[in-house]
Amino acid sequence: MIRNVVILGAGNLATQLALALDENGIQITQVYSRTSESAQQLAEKVNASFTSELSKLDLQSDLYVLAVKDSAIPEVLENLPFLENQFIVHTAGSVPMNVIEVFTSNYGVFYPLQTFSKIRKVDFSVIPICIEANHPGNLIALQELAEKISGTVHQINSEERKSLHLAAVFVNNFVNHFYTLGAEILQDKKLDFSLLKPLIQETAAKIEHLHPIDAQTGPAKRDDQEVIQAQLKLLQNKPEFKKIYSFVTESIFQYHQNQKHDLF
Amino acid sequence: MIRNVVILGAGNLATQLALALDENGIQITQVYSRTSESAQQLAEKVNASFTSELSKLDLQSDLYVLAVKDSAIPEVLENLPFLENQFIVHTAGSVPMNVIEVFTSNYGVFYPLQTFSKIRKVDFSVIPICIEANHPGNLIALQELAEKISGTVHQINSEERKSLHLAAVFVNNFVNHFYTLGAEILQDKKLDFSLLKPLIQETAAKIEHLHPIDAQTGPAKRDDQEVIQAQLKLLQNKPEFKKIYSFVTESIFQYHQNQKHDLF
Repeated sequence: MIRNVVILGAGNLATQLALALDENGIQITQVYSRTSESAQQLAEKVNASFTSELSKLDLQSDLYVLAVKDSAIPEVLENLPFLENQFIVHTAGSVPMNVIEVFTSNYGVFYPLQTFSKIRKVDFSVIPICIEANHPGNLIALQELAEKISGTVHQINSEERKSLHLAAVFVNNFVNHFYTLGAEILQDKKLDFSLLKPLIQETAAKIEHLHPIDAQTGPAKRDDQEVIQAQLKLLQNKPEFKKIYSFVTESIFQYHQNQKHDLF
Repeated sequence: MIRNVVILGAGNLATQLALALDENGIQITQVYSRTSESAQQLAEKVNASFTSELSKLDLQSDLYVLAVKDSAIPEVLENLPFLENQFIVHTAGSVPMNVIEVFTSNYGVFYPLQTFSKIRKVDFSVIPICIEANHPGNLIALQELAEKISGTVHQINSEERKSLHLAAVFVNNFVNHFYTLGAEILQDKKLDFSLLKPLIQETAAKIEHLHPIDAQTGPAKRDDQEVIQAQLKLLQNKPEFKKIYSFVTESIFQYHQNQKHDLF
């Protein structure tokens, strides 16, 4: 059973995860970050020690959670001071589990499917945690740990996790970009972005009970050329917006046209 | 002061608006719909009479709300049996107020900025209602009516409303399309769409307190070509997804690159 954890990283995910574990009876023994100040900041929140040198890592912890950015994972792994087979997991959606394979015989993935900010506290209990491990004993240990902080724990292999991460890019990164474009359209007319907030919330709330295919409305789906052409005209001085409007409008129309034939 | 209203239309918006008005002490005297059955259904919910013939419209009402689809507005207007100057408003984001001008000397727009389903009840009190009228007296009457059902009432002219509607297409129709694409990516791996729901909710919740420009994260913004290329590879058998992935990724990168220079 995992009773204590070392957190490597002090970014948004590392912070939120450390807080959630700490609140649910898991001891955070140490926080590592390349930046001493960041390590200290997080360490203080969870009563842990901290270090900015991998050589000074606590060697006695039940689990080492690599919550650094994807591209930093290989470098941190290569510089771990472990001589034994410490249990290491990473938290990245797009990185396969086996990148850890050569460094220890106990490893896995602990991937919370959510977007994190350092400041904004998230409710971990509703966040799906996707776990994977190199053998059944480690999987059980991760399952127990995950269940302490979340009501939704899924065993997801590296192939599946790649697709999950890709879908997350669509519904989080891409969606947020369209919020940004919407905000700029209003800004051009000195209209307040907050006008759109209830619509944004309802659009998200709708899909809790309705599949998004069935929630689709608007001029693109019904190929309402009168509205589409008028809106393109409104964008005539914003060529980039016009391009993206045309492109997504066409995509919506084609997708719903082809639904029955599965051509998209 | 507007005490009673005739609702023309029985779709999602007409239904939700009629319910909200009825609940807040405004009498719905009559519901018109081309389809008698739809008119009856809504009429029963708000204790109104109903008709499917414009010639049988109640002529004594304080206000006539055209809540039909945009393309049907001209036809309904042309067939109204009014001889006097009844007060008529439409509810369409993309239609200018002056389409009503030739039919009466009392007219305006009553545009609730929200997405409506017939079944799903929305909380009208948080929906921005955008009003416009042809003279100050009518504007005051609409303002009072709108304030009965919503805490957020804005005077918005036809030009501004066009931009609002365009922005709404970005943050509602386009966003929902990306939910759909995310759902399909999971479906291909037999993963449940509900895995994405907490992420979708948090993505929307974030912008309540953080401008979406500042909430943007992910491989596109930081130009993480390793992740981007791996995700494109994952989409190799879905050319339409690949195209839209590349396009939006490029748009995000360019937008955030050019922020300082205002080139986008």
